[in-house]
Amino acid sequence: MTPILTGFAQSPDRGRGLARDMRVRWALEELGLPYEVRLVSFAEMKEPAHLALHPFGQIPTYQEGGLALFESGAILLHLAGQHAGLLPTDPLARARAVGWVFAALNTIEPPILDLFTARVLEGDKPWAAERLPLVQDRIRTRFGQLSARLGAAEWLEGDFTAGDLMMVSVLLRARSSGLLEEFPTLAAYVARGEARAAYQRAFAAQLAVFTALSDGS
Amino acid sequence: MTPILTGFAQSPDRGRGLARDMRVRWALEELGLPYEVRLVSFAEMKEPAHLALHPFGQIPTYQEGGLALFESGAILLHLAGQHAGLLPTDPLARARAVGWVFAALNTIEPPILDLFTARVLEGDKPWAAERLPLVQDRIRTRFGQLSARLGAAEWLEGDFTAGDLMMVSVLLRARSSGLLEEFPTLAAYVARGEARAAYQRAFAAQLAVFTALSDGS
Repeated sequence: MTPILTGFAQSPDRGRGLARDMRVRWALEELGLPYEVRLVSFAEMKEPAHLALHPFGQIPTYQEGGLALFESGAILLHLAGQHAGLLPTDPLARARAVGWVFAALNTIEPPILDLFTARVLEGDKPWAAERLPLVQDRIRTRFGQLSARLGAAEWLEGDFTAGDLMMVSVLLRARSSGLLEEFPTLAAYVARGEARAAYQRAFAAQLAVFTALSDGS
Repeated sequence: MTPILTGFAQSPDRGRGLARDMRVRWALEELGLPYEVRLVSFAEMKEPAHLALHPFGQIPTYQEGGLALFESGAILLHLAGQHAGLLPTDPLARARAVGWVFAALNTIEPPILDLFTARVLEGDKPWAAERLPLVQDRIRTRFGQLSARLGAAEWLEGDFTAGDLMMVSVLLRARSSGLLEEFPTLAAYVARGEARAAYQRAFAAQLAVFTALSDGS
């Protein structure tokens, strides 16, 4: 049975591939698995049918046979657990790769999301200009630590793993801030991720959704 | 080989069990596994020896034989994968339980941590009083959604799982804000978690560290 993802009907990033469905598309492409995408509008995301799939009213959701999952990290680990290619077979190396999935989502992504809060959600507040540098410095702290750990390595834990897939996906969300370019080690790491054929296929697929909808409007 | 955790030598919450070592202690107690704790000071956490274990200079770390892990979510999934008791054996139910671990860490915890940012890190800023209600409302949105999903159920996915362990641990971090009490369903859920014998043993163990250090100072 072909799995079904949900994605934004109206891409908030205009096809730049920053929405969380991209992570799952990329994983499916790395694993060579077919999938279908069902687009949902912002209004539909708050309706009971979607909330039954995703209690927090977001995308992506993932449906496969009797399974309905949400949270991109959980979907990624589910796919990587069912199919070879995104996690090492050695149990210790596998645990470390899973560790990087959590580090991406719980340590690196929150300060990056706070940048969105500062610039967009609170962009019209009187404190916006003065608060932004504080938020940026918290990101710099994490980027510096991550850059130091990565060092001259190509990927975080030997070969490319689900941990790299999630870390690159999260780091891409900071690109428009210019902060990524302050850390050449990380900028090069992200570029290596983007250069993967599976990333390119996933990116093209989500861009096609935006392009088709733009042409039709 | 007995696993070794790290915890704070100087408990920032004065033994209230809100530091992230508590999640791992709780998991180990649920599984009936022995463990040792090595306490580290804030200064030691920034030194190379600790950064080799945890690149972001935090606690907990988890060492067991040749494995060194960080990120409480990864440690929890590692333990739950190696020992029966915290994840269902049915693969679909297991994937859903893992989903709740990610929901706790990636959807519920970030806005709660932003409360700490607003009240402590930016507590002396001119915008502190005006910004706080915005942060609180973001938490209320998530708490309302989680409360709606939990409904009359005892736990999030049938029996108690690693997902509940992490969700209760994260929700406890909001208790001092008073926001948890606005959602009686969630307050009762957290109380059920705290009432578990394994939670009580883990809580007592971390409190003993604080008490011993306080007596000695």
